[in-house]
Amino acid sequence: MWLKTLYFALLFLSLGQIAQRAYAQPQVEKWGRFELTLKGPESGNPFNDVLLAAEFSKGAEKVKVAGFYDGQGVYKVRFMPGSLGEWQYRTVSNTKSLNGKTGKFECIVPSADNHGPVQVADTYHFKYADGTRYYPFGTTAYAWTHQPEGLEELTLTTLKSAPFNKIRMCVFPKYYANVENEPRYYPFEKKDSTATPTGRVKFTWDFSRFNPAFFEHLEKRIDDLNKLGIEADVIIFHPYDKGRWGFDSLGKENDLNYIHYLTARLSSFRNVWWSMANEFDYIKTKPREVWDVYSKAVVAADPYHHLNSIHNGSVYYDNWKPEFSHVSIQNGSAVDGFGKAVLLKDVFFKPMLYDEVCYEGDLPQRWGHLSGEEMTEAFWQGTIAGTYVTHGETYKNPGDTIFWAKGGRLVGKSPARIGFLRKIMENAPGPLELADPWKDNCTATANSSYYLIYLGKDMKPEWELSLPNKAGPAPGKKFRIELIDTWDMTITVLPEVFETQRADGYRIFDKNRKSIRLPMKPYLAIRLTEI
Amino acid sequence: MWLKTLYFALLFLSLGQIAQRAYAQPQVEKWGRFELTLKGPESGNPFNDVLLAAEFSKGAEKVKVAGFYDGQGVYKVRFMPGSLGEWQYRTVSNTKSLNGKTGKFECIVPSADNHGPVQVADTYHFKYADGTRYYPFGTTAYAWTHQPEGLEELTLTTLKSAPFNKIRMCVFPKYYANVENEPRYYPFEKKDSTATPTGRVKFTWDFSRFNPAFFEHLEKRIDDLNKLGIEADVIIFHPYDKGRWGFDSLGKENDLNYIHYLTARLSSFRNVWWSMANEFDYIKTKPREVWDVYSKAVVAADPYHHLNSIHNGSVYYDNWKPEFSHVSIQNGSAVDGFGKAVLLKDVFFKPMLYDEVCYEGDLPQRWGHLSGEEMTEAFWQGTIAGTYVTHGETYKNPGDTIFWAKGGRLVGKSPARIGFLRKIMENAPGPLELADPWKDNCTATANSSYYLIYLGKDMKPEWELSLPNKAGPAPGKKFRIELIDTWDMTITVLPEVFETQRADGYRIFDKNRKSIRLPMKPYLAIRLTEI
Repeated sequence: MWLKTLYFALLFLSLGQIAQRAYAQPQVEKWGRFELTLKGPESGNPFNDVLLAAEFSKGAEKVKVAGFYDGQGVYKVRFMPGSLGEWQYRTVSNTKSLNGKTGKFECIVPSADNHGPVQVADTYHFKYADGTRYYPFGTTAYAWTHQPEGLEELTLTTLKSAPFNKIRMCVFPKYYANVENEPRYYPFEKKDSTATPTGRVKFTWDFSRFNPAFFEHLEKRIDDLNKLGIEADVIIFHPYDKGRWGFDSLGKENDLNYIHYLTARLSSFRNVWWSMANEFDYIKTKPREVWDVYSKAVVAADPYHHLNSIHNGSVYYDNWKPEFSHVSIQNGSAVDGFGKAVLLKDVFFKPMLYDEVCYEGDLPQRWGHLSGEEMTEAFWQGTIAGTYVTHGETYKNPGDTIFWAKGGRLVGKSPARIGFLRKIMENAPGPLELADPWKDNCTATANSSYYLIYLGKDMKPEWELSLPNKAGPAPGKKFRIELIDTWDMTITVLPEVFETQRADGYRIFDKNRKSIRLPMKPYLAIRLTEI
Repeated sequence: MWLKTLYFALLFLSLGQIAQRAYAQPQVEKWGRFELTLKGPESGNPFNDVLLAAEFSKGAEKVKVAGFYDGQGVYKVRFMPGSLGEWQYRTVSNTKSLNGKTGKFECIVPSADNHGPVQVADTYHFKYADGTRYYPFGTTAYAWTHQPEGLEELTLTTLKSAPFNKIRMCVFPKYYANVENEPRYYPFEKKDSTATPTGRVKFTWDFSRFNPAFFEHLEKRIDDLNKLGIEADVIIFHPYDKGRWGFDSLGKENDLNYIHYLTARLSSFRNVWWSMANEFDYIKTKPREVWDVYSKAVVAADPYHHLNSIHNGSVYYDNWKPEFSHVSIQNGSAVDGFGKAVLLKDVFFKPMLYDEVCYEGDLPQRWGHLSGEEMTEAFWQGTIAGTYVTHGETYKNPGDTIFWAKGGRLVGKSPARIGFLRKIMENAPGPLELADPWKDNCTATANSSYYLIYLGKDMKPEWELSLPNKAGPAPGKKFRIELIDTWDMTITVLPEVFETQRADGYRIFDKNRKSIRLPMKPYLAIRLTEI
């Protein structure tokens, strides 16, 4: 891959003059996808033999992107324009029929639901490229794109009314308990197949030839998600293969070719996030050192710098490395009580996503049997600490699929509550942080006129109006008090008003030291908004 | 400093032949201190003008060490030999009378209480250089070496019978509430002094001239600690100056000269640890970038690679950087309950020291008013998570000093309990780790024949004999059960025997599913040792 990069760099320097016209869409909206289709050689191994790239330019703005072979003599170059106006392009290739193609298109104003790709904002949080806040409320369906058509469509129907705006999903098919079916498409060209004694078909592959239909299908599903406003957290490698297909054991050269091909196809999709791996440390065929190479390869190949992370099993990767835009942590214990989520958040100076915190469900395994209450609690614990939590569902009902594995229906109790929390967040003036981290584990603030206090499992008959002095409001401010029932999903405006007094210590109290009565229920929260 | 290093490198290459004999101790024990004293120029500024170093060699072993000016025309070179046998040395200097001095000494077997410097072992733990386990049980007395003679001696008397084997202490004097006195010695030569309107004397300094008496005194105290088996966690910079002396604002060149001088004097002390700073982020005169330069300078100047860390205020430094041997964290909330200390431990792949977790005492500030129970709880929480916790005491009694500030007497309730825990650790077969991290927050193990289960604040009438399957013992093993009262400091052997059965899930139970009765007291622990 590095040789290819060098080769392209030289091409760009030397082949500027040889220009032929080519045609594609005349208009593309900002952060939309421009696609140039070219005809080229079918003989030999075009995946290996043909190098294709293009430079897109608009005045001083220049973006170099890799093209790819899409089978049957068709080559494509995709581009996501990030600014309005006329863009020009010129291809470079080691193949005459693909080299020096030029053209232009107009980048027009994006449509209303197109906010651009998600980016890091304010160190620990996110915004879309157009500045709109994005609070990740993710779910998990690792193998949903490897299912029968009808099931995939059902998943999309489910997601349409679910509260999730991100989904963790694997490129490669998954072989694991509850996900044992063959996928409809395979990423590589089949060389041969033999029946094993157990009746299963064992394939051999040509890892030097990709299967364009596989990727086309994946792309369709990513576009389907985009229409629903859902970010695709695309998992590049995973350990759930166990010799079934061998996609976890391609070897370093094939791994890098795959990264090159995948990024060439997908980088122009605005809702793509890269997840280098799920449970990277459980992929025993890849030593720890190689993730440095692979993550650098992804970053180098993606001209748009989509979000990138690496997800752990029981051992963390070096999440502070600059290739990672945010931290994607598996650790349910970090969000199962007060004062824990913030401990890891403070280490990395990046957004913290708890991307696996066990799942709501009834599997015998402890990672798959959270109650709805526990899953909801994890979201609240993560949210008030200024971090983000990802959902998954593992109920095993007869005749049903398991959403976490194959997609399908959601039957759990947490999604509605997660949607309720998402609305609260989207109505907040900005992202949350603990006001007085390490000391007050339950009071989050967006700014000095907005506080969200989560009371957790413990029930208290009353709560004394109080805020930490640190990041607290000035004296003499008045706050509306709302009692939030995070389980019953109600918000009740209380008749009392909280009037702040000057603090004489670490806390700010009401000027009359008022308390409010609480119902004897768990999972309450209090929202204080300056009047 | 880098120029100096280069200069020495060239000297070593070119001046090999010019050799004169010099005399020092004929015998030094392994990890003891060899000291060569030479006479040289007094004129000019010997701290700046004279460069002195020496190479010590024994066969293929070669160690280059910096010398230093000790005032009154005296120059010294110190060396800590790490292997037995005859060592030879040769000085190099830009000053003729100091250059080419050669000699030899014999490194002899260390005395019984000399185990060498402490080093990292087993990723998260420590050993002395001779292989003896070292479990840090530290305390804090930031300014104890800047007090009147009698108080310093009292501190040593206190430490002699206290349970601590490490102490955090500042090189520079400290100016803070409860530590406002002038020190006996200053690290730099005084240029001038003027009385301020408040009656305090304001000094001006020649930062290019060190005060050898200051460092000689510091060294005596570090040696005093060594005699007591206490490691000196030497804090190189700290923010507690506020314009009083200006030692937090020397500027980069003077800071680096100070590092060079300090490491030249102290690197040969086997009980020295480097702490780049206390609350580095509160030293507003030093931007974050500079700590990279300073920590690299310390590592480069210390040929023995003493332990090195950097301690934070409210923002962590990049503890994963290779200059740091271990993580020195201020965060009391990480050890105030179950399942928290391990969260940070898993991030860095280094020993984790919670070097400030608030202090036992009665100051109005929340960082200075832990109860003895809370301080003891912090130690147990850290210990069972495979991390290490540091003590400090801030009781303010009339006529007494505050140990955390000036040293003196310890009056708190936690030291005895910390000593009790230290004995338990030193009787364990090895360092502890959580057996089933992120899932079972209270069961630590040293190996499959030793488990230590901490029950914390909550009181339970009984406890079912049980261990996690992960890192658990084989079936059919028998364990002695001891009930530990961590507060009353008693260990009771119970009549029951725990006979392990094959696990059918995540837990191993007794073959008869036995439970043990517990007294209704908090802060109990259970020790299971294979019979």
